Amino acid sequence: MKRGKFITFEGGEGVGKSTQAKRLADRLERTGVPVIVTREPGGTPVGEDVRDLILKDRPTDPVTELLLFAAARAEHVTSVIRPALDDGTWVISDRFIDSTRVYQGKRYGLEPELISLLERYTVAPDFPDLTLILDLPANEGVERAQSRGTLSRYDAERIETHETLRKGFLEIATNEPKRCVLIDASLPVSSVETAVWQAVSAHLLAEAH
Amino acid sequence: MKRGKFITFEGGEGVGKSTQAKRLADRLERTGVPVIVTREPGGTPVGEDVRDLILKDRPTDPVTELLLFAAARAEHVTSVIRPALDDGTWVISDRFIDSTRVYQGKRYGLEPELISLLERYTVAPDFPDLTLILDLPANEGVERAQSRGTLSRYDAERIETHETLRKGFLEIATNEPKRCVLIDASLPVSSVETAVWQAVSAHLLAEAH
Repeated sequence: MKRGKFITFEGGEGVGKSTQAKRLADRLERTGVPVIVTREPGGTPVGEDVRDLILKDRPTDPVTELLLFAAARAEHVTSVIRPALDDGTWVISDRFIDSTRVYQGKRYGLEPELISLLERYTVAPDFPDLTLILDLPANEGVERAQSRGTLSRYDAERIETHETLRKGFLEIATNEPKRCVLIDASLPVSSVETAVWQAVSAHLLAEAH
Repeated sequence: MKRGKFITFEGGEGVGKSTQAKRLADRLERTGVPVIVTREPGGTPVGEDVRDLILKDRPTDPVTELLLFAAARAEHVTSVIRPALDDGTWVISDRFIDSTRVYQGKRYGLEPELISLLERYTVAPDFPDLTLILDLPANEGVERAQSRGTLSRYDAERIETHETLRKGFLEIATNEPKRCVLIDASLPVSSVETAVWQAVSAHLLAEAH
């Protein structure tokens, strides 16, 4: 059986990751590709409880938060993502390693070496085949998140912080052009959907069929 | 101000770690040494909740469990152990890095390289000054734990597993003779207490006073 493909959506708050993940899944299903949509943090009971734990206990040490997310990721890969891929199912994840690199790495200044070691132990060899980075000026994303009433604790931070995060995602897109496609998320939802579909077609469907 | 000393108690189930930790703290206090007793997993809200999360969600991936404990340790070191040591207070912990090396490392066959990397990022430079490894044949320890009604999920495992764990602790004692003192926990509680006190006096009090 042909192994499934692994696609991740990344980007700041309010850029439309969940919407686009769902739309892409619908399109793939219509072409007969078996697919699941999942998300981080979350995707497993451990992931959901880690998310709650962080909100409740508010760890004082950034390394604690990094390791909690890494633990959730290990479980997510082992119990959800890898079995699906092995089974020929495509997996779309709303956030994955790049959010950790940006939110924990850039934001807290944690060592990239530690972050990539954790990726090696929690993800390898199942790195994403394609990562769609949805890009939007920070103030627009935050306004969208505010208007839909889904302010996370990160949303509430200052606009400069959101700009730092955005730069982190842009840097990843520049450094890993084979894996990442940067998409202008200020376009209408249907145009973003088209851009996503073009990227998936060009990168993955050609070889999958 | 003179930095506090960091002492850990290690060993299998039922060897008397908690009892001896408390007795040592009482003795140190009587000699005028400020001291706190803490434990792992636990010692902080994050640690307590990680313990509950593992029991509730039962992660399928051993790496998940390892990272959850590592996260709890980072928080424990940062918010409890390090501030106390900095403040001149001695810290006694009921379990610490060696339990991870043995319970997660030996038991699940996780890579020692990953375990020592996590130690570096969560503990360094605050490694224990002295580790007291309480040793007891596995069947005796399990019987003690059973009779006091505090069977953990590890207690319930087969006796061969407990022997593997015991060997793991003995190996650490052999490999790190400067840090570790092996104590025969089959002796009466008061004799163990005396042996602990002799080890602490020889290793730490001479230089502390």
